[in-house]
Formats: sequence, C-alpha cells, structure tokens
Amino acid sequence: MRIPPDVETLLAANQAYYDAFEALDIDAMSDVWEHSDRVVCTHPGWSTLRGWAAVTASWVAIFGGGQRLQFILTEPAAETIGDVGWVSVNENVLGAAEGTTISAFNVFVRVDGRWSMVAHHAGQVVGS
Amino acid sequence: MRIPPDVETLLAANQAYYDAFEALDIDAMSDVWEHSDRVVCTHPGWSTLRGWAAVTASWVAIFGGGQRLQFILTEPAAETIGDVGWVSVNENVLGAAEGTTISAFNVFVRVDGRWSMVAHHAGQVVGS
Repeated sequence: MRIPPDVETLLAANQAYYDAFEALDIDAMSDVWEHSDRVVCTHPGWSTLRGWAAVTASWVAIFGGGQRLQFILTEPAAETIGDVGWVSVNENVLGAAEGTTISAFNVFVRVDGRWSMVAHHAGQVVGS
Repeated sequence: MRIPPDVETLLAANQAYYDAFEALDIDAMSDVWEHSDRVVCTHPGWSTLRGWAAVTASWVAIFGGGQRLQFILTEPAAETIGDVGWVSVNENVLGAAEGTTISAFNVFVRVDGRWSMVAHHAGQVVGS
C-alpha cells in the first residue's frame, strides 16, 4: 500500500522524536517540538506539562538522568487533516527496569512544510 | 477574557463527552464521537482501541458496569486549527474506589459546523 506523502513526512517527524529520545539528544528533541505556549506533554504517570518552557525542562531532566531507552514502535496509525496530523502508536520500551508498553498519542502541526510536535500524551498499559 | 467562538463550541463538545459519561448514556456518547475507522480511544491503563466498532464496544462494557462517576474538570486548555481542535484537561474523578486524577487529551474534528471526537487519550497521574 502506497503511503500518502503527507503521512510519510508526518511519520518521519514522529520517528525523529523517538530517535532524539534514544540518543538523549536535547538539541534534536528541541528541533522536534514547536516552541510555543500551546504545546502539551504528558509523560507516563505525570501530570500534563504545558508550554515549551515546562516541556523542555522535563527533557533536560529526563535526559540528564542518562538512562538509555530503546523504543520498538508497533501499530502506528497516522492521520492528517490539512496541516494537523497525529500518530497513535505503541511504544515497547526496552531498557527500563522491565520492558513496558506505553500507548502514545502524538500531534503535529505543519508550518512551511515542516511538521512540529505540539502534543505528546503517553500512558503505561497496565500489566505491560 | 472573551473565548473565541471556535473554542467555545469545541469546549461544549468536550463537555458533552463528560456529560454522557456521567449519565452512562450510550446514545449521547455515540453522538459525541465520529463514527469512523480513524477514531482512537485509550482508557487509563488500557491499550489503544481503534475504530468506532471497538470504541463503542468499550463504552457499552463500561456503562454496563453501572458505576457512576463524576468528573470535575480542571485546567482545560483548548486549541483549534481550522477544523481540528483539541482539549487538554485534568479529570478529577469522584466515585471511583478513591478519588483519582486523570490527564486527558481529547481531539475533535469539525464537519458541517459540528465537532466530533476522533481521539480520547487518558492516563492516571501517579500518586493521585
């Protein structure tokens, strides 16, 4: 099945998020996100962080911990409507105390042809 | 502060979701959602359900349990981009075994002037 160009670039932006996380690369993670007040990020079990200042502070703290994780992504489902796109995906996380599955929902907005993340919402699947 | 009309109608659609949940009203909940393959719903701790058939089956099961919950919504943050809108909100849930806080992210798409839910992603805040 041919993937529409919109979805292909959206999935590439989504992958860039996980690549930055695996590399603990704060500059790459910064490039993934829109730097605005409207961004929201919910790490598993955390309350929601709002605005780029709070979101980037969380990445600095998480990456500063130095824990390397590997994300095996399964069942990605991507949708685009104009310049808004989202990806629902299972994150199978290796490197945590035990392997866990996180259900994630990632939203991107396209400006000048470039997708930027505006929302990441993640929750651990119970029993995973 | 005046709320833009787009956001006002979006927040009304979001409220309709919680009203339907509190009333255990499957018809009202059905009216809230877009009936399509692209809808996704992640109940707290669940893996993600995809497509309206799976999503509505979950509501039938949840409402069939008969447990009445009350949702006190705090810190709603709503955004619209064209005919896509989302609401990030804390659900403070009364009526569960103990009061819990759920961070929720709800996405709606507007067709013919009417917002329909296409994604609900919810996770319990640890320690809540």
